[in-house]
Amino acid sequence: MNWKDLNIAVVAGDRREQEIARCAAATGATVRAYGFPWPEGGIPGVQLCQSAAEALDGADFALFPIPGITAEGALFAPACPERIIPDRAMLSGMRAPARIILGWADPKLQAHCDALGITVDEYEWDQDLMLLRGPAIVEGMIRVLIEHTDITIHKANICLIGQGTIGSLMTSTLIGLGAHVHVAARNPVQRAAAYAAGAQSHGLDELAALLPTMDIVVGSVPTCILDRELLQRLPPHALIVDLAAPPGGVDRDAAKALGLKFVWARGLGMRAPITVGRSQWSGVQPRIERAMKERK
Amino acid sequence: MNWKDLNIAVVAGDRREQEIARCAAATGATVRAYGFPWPEGGIPGVQLCQSAAEALDGADFALFPIPGITAEGALFAPACPERIIPDRAMLSGMRAPARIILGWADPKLQAHCDALGITVDEYEWDQDLMLLRGPAIVEGMIRVLIEHTDITIHKANICLIGQGTIGSLMTSTLIGLGAHVHVAARNPVQRAAAYAAGAQSHGLDELAALLPTMDIVVGSVPTCILDRELLQRLPPHALIVDLAAPPGGVDRDAAKALGLKFVWARGLGMRAPITVGRSQWSGVQPRIERAMKERK
Amino acid sequence: MNWKDLNIAVVAGDRREQEIARCAAATGATVRAYGFPWPEGGIPGVQLCQSAAEALDGADFALFPIPGITAEGALFAPACPERIIPDRAMLSGMRAPARIILGWADPKLQAHCDALGITVDEYEWDQDLMLLRGPAIVEGMIRVLIEHTDITIHKANICLIGQGTIGSLMTSTLIGLGAHVHVAARNPVQRAAAYAAGAQSHGLDELAALLPTMDIVVGSVPTCILDRELLQRLPPHALIVDLAAPPGGVDRDAAKALGLKFVWARGLGMRAPITVGRSQWSGVQPRIERAMKERK
Amino acid sequence: MNWKDLNIAVVAGDRREQEIARCAAATGATVRAYGFPWPEGGIPGVQLCQSAAEALDGADFALFPIPGITAEGALFAPACPERIIPDRAMLSGMRAPARIILGWADPKLQAHCDALGITVDEYEWDQDLMLLRGPAIVEGMIRVLIEHTDITIHKANICLIGQGTIGSLMTSTLIGLGAHVHVAARNPVQRAAAYAAGAQSHGLDELAALLPTMDIVVGSVPTCILDRELLQRLPPHALIVDLAAPPGGVDRDAAKALGLKFVWARGLGMRAPITVGRSQWSGVQPRIERAMKERK
Repeated sequence: MNWKDLNIAVVAGDRREQEIARCAAATGATVRAYGFPWPEGGIPGVQLCQSAAEALDGADFALFPIPGITAEGALFAPACPERIIPDRAMLSGMRAPARIILGWADPKLQAHCDALGITVDEYEWDQDLMLLRGPAIVEGMIRVLIEHTDITIHKANICLIGQGTIGSLMTSTLIGLGAHVHVAARNPVQRAAAYAAGAQSHGLDELAALLPTMDIVVGSVPTCILDRELLQRLPPHALIVDLAAPPGGVDRDAAKALGLKFVWARGLGMRAPITVGRSQWSGVQPRIERAMKERK
Repeated sequence: MNWKDLNIAVVAGDRREQEIARCAAATGATVRAYGFPWPEGGIPGVQLCQSAAEALDGADFALFPIPGITAEGALFAPACPERIIPDRAMLSGMRAPARIILGWADPKLQAHCDALGITVDEYEWDQDLMLLRGPAIVEGMIRVLIEHTDITIHKANICLIGQGTIGSLMTSTLIGLGAHVHVAARNPVQRAAAYAAGAQSHGLDELAALLPTMDIVVGSVPTCILDRELLQRLPPHALIVDLAAPPGGVDRDAAKALGLKFVWARGLGMRAPITVGRSQWSGVQPRIERAMKERK
Repeated sequence: MNWKDLNIAVVAGDRREQEIARCAAATGATVRAYGFPWPEGGIPGVQLCQSAAEALDGADFALFPIPGITAEGALFAPACPERIIPDRAMLSGMRAPARIILGWADPKLQAHCDALGITVDEYEWDQDLMLLRGPAIVEGMIRVLIEHTDITIHKANICLIGQGTIGSLMTSTLIGLGAHVHVAARNPVQRAAAYAAGAQSHGLDELAALLPTMDIVVGSVPTCILDRELLQRLPPHALIVDLAAPPGGVDRDAAKALGLKFVWARGLGMRAPITVGRSQWSGVQPRIERAMKERK
Repeated sequence: MNWKDLNIAVVAGDRREQEIARCAAATGATVRAYGFPWPEGGIPGVQLCQSAAEALDGADFALFPIPGITAEGALFAPACPERIIPDRAMLSGMRAPARIILGWADPKLQAHCDALGITVDEYEWDQDLMLLRGPAIVEGMIRVLIEHTDITIHKANICLIGQGTIGSLMTSTLIGLGAHVHVAARNPVQRAAAYAAGAQSHGLDELAALLPTMDIVVGSVPTCILDRELLQRLPPHALIVDLAAPPGGVDRDAAKALGLKFVWARGLGMRAPITVGRSQWSGVQPRIERAMKERK
């Protein structure tokens, strides 16, 4: 089996999927698409369908978007007028042994796939893909900081709360831009990594003493660390950015009541769709290749 | 003579003047303001006037904005409904020996000042002030690049044409963000500085060979280097940014005809008005002090 | 129980132990020392002993050096004329419940401690301590590169094989110095991290194609990756540095036979003994505090 | 006239001249050499002579080393057992219209050349060549700092006094290594450039207050700024490095009397002879080409 014999469906998503579909078609596979913004002039080798079911019909592989699945089970497809809910009927046209490669599947999608014998291949937690799209996320973040401040990042006092994969990229990028970066984290290895990268590192118990001199606070921890008491310690001009998934790491009501600037920086993944689409494809392609090998 | 005895007028400008007026008032001087956006809650110690003439009445020093003066002789004051043209009547209320500190004066303003015995003190060409506001301009530029591209700055091929004071800050910042930076300049010292900073440097005659692999081109030379012939060599996705003052360094009509993305990045100086206002004040304050000393 | 009541022995080591002993004495504890180079003028509050047994007599805690233990069971003590082998007699004078804090213990030392009821507390694999001494190791490495090359690190082509904790610090530091850094690693997460940091990343199977253009190769993988076949592909001026523990990651005989410059960069941990001693103490101190709490 | 017809003499110098001679021979010119360390295996296309006079006999161009000329008029040639003093006899064999390209000429050499009709072409003050060899000098400096300190550059407090071409490269490199860099300079443009690059900048009058917290001081100003009074304010562990040409910018006797570590970092230009030789050649080659054109 080789790429020329493959049918690939790219369904839902945003501008990143344009690049993913382009990369998929460049392998020689037959690629059909639905549910993401379609560029003027089309995409070489990619066929636009009228529905998700049509795109999936006969597909060996289906590629669904990264950001996963909304509460109702609809795929992320902000530019699509219709909600795309991958139900049993829609998926039944895929060609066995079918495989869906996507961020992560909710229990309903998983149940349909189990019933239809479709393999679900999730990559949401692949740390290498997260790192490859890391610079795009960091640049999206930089833009948010530039847009919402009246001072420069250069020489600003910035506190990052939490220091995971993206957090440590952010630390080194902000240091490179000349900021005074403080990292507050519970994990001593993360604190040591931030120190080695040039930041000043702190335990979470030092936040109360630290915040009065900060200009910008960026949280990436999904539990509410910036509560009212801590928020009160910030200077009035401070910008607070929350990168965490809902419910987030900031008491937004308190921030509002205190008159602080607050930005919920979700959707940073939409920055640089070509770069990110390409990096996603670099994770999708070997998964397809592995699956093809197993079939032989 | 000391600060408490001084009357300072801050007239025209944008949000940077808020910070300049705040700094001026912090010295203890009497500060009156007109023609720049007035913040909710006012500025401690600064009195808002109803006209430029009122603000200038009795002033020892007048501070006018950086960006100089439009063709008609009006001061830069984008948020002021009325045009502020500093004519003889308006300036005649200043208290001798009066002094106007500003970017630069056009011949009309200069003539009025000569007639009235007002000293004109220009700082447009102070390289130290340009460097102090450099990071703000570079960050404004970074934002433009992030807003107008579908790829990351990280690993992008970026060509900077020209390499003056701001250009070399841009080079090192873009390198720090992971870009592959190419600098094309006529001056061998600028080329050598770019090389030492980590860029690849080129003569202007190498542009034709270089452009086909570039993702972003940033020009900061006021003569038209990017003509139709060179623009044709760029790939279709390339972003062109012109930092030069009018008439600019890019054949805009040709860029449009070729369907290239073009951004005229003027007004980057409005990024980070607090930082920039403060750095402007750091240049204005010693000028006032020197003038006070000379008067004794 | 508090610091004033503690007896701490600092035995063996190098100049780092001077700083560790100094930090230990600054807590108010009684500190006795033996087996590391003794500074002219002594160390405030630290008492030099005539033998390891004397230093250990009555000690609640013994601090032994990081680099662990030689094959014969002797402690690392390069400046000590006598070999210090911690046998049962030497350790028996410690005050119960005694604790030895050290890099790692060999089976003999472990057996003696088991017999005597002494707790062994190893920190060799603490990633936070490794990160805290990371900049010292990287700077030691930078010095090795500068000493052994006729070209600058700036613009040199450098290949790092392996990308662990120290390797990734080295990547970002060398990029900061202007090198073209290539990272070859088996692990895709390490490769993605190197890419995000600005390097070019490669699989190990790409080494053969990569090496002919490299100026410097730094290996930090403990298995022999740079075999004769790969070494032959290097240009004659290439410098090879091996950071791996014995037996190392380079076929040294082949490197010699090929006339290549080869440096075995062990002992980089001796760079910056004050910084490193202090960071070691930052790991030792909380271990002592935890042990004291448990005793209450 | 073209390269094949040229006779070039490379006389005196150190290992940099090996690379200069190699580059010269690569043009096709006839190259004869004397007075610099001769590599085992020779230099392709370069002929080693027995004396300076022999190398110069019939030469159209003579290349003398960068560091100029000692007090006695001898050329810089540390590895040459004999002193090479370019007198009238030695130079008289050059082929008219002869040209000597070198750092700078002392009055005696200039007089001989005037008498013999030889053109003297000095490049000591070419800022572009200084920048091109800048990274080599900075790396030599980094090595000095690493060799002479017990703390890391990372997080060290470093004060640079003076901020010329090389000084500003040093500032950005040290910041990249994680140091806290303070720049003290008289010139406000240099101070502003250091600030924009991420350093803290100070007037010289702030040194007295600054020095007590510094770990390392690097001077590059040729007048004695670090006098006894300022040196006394340094902590006992401070390292002082003087980059300035004799008589230097530090009261060395006072530093000695105070027991401070002092390094006179001359000869940093000998770091990375291949890179530096090549960059020197990039300045020499166009000079030869210009001279050839003028002769036509």
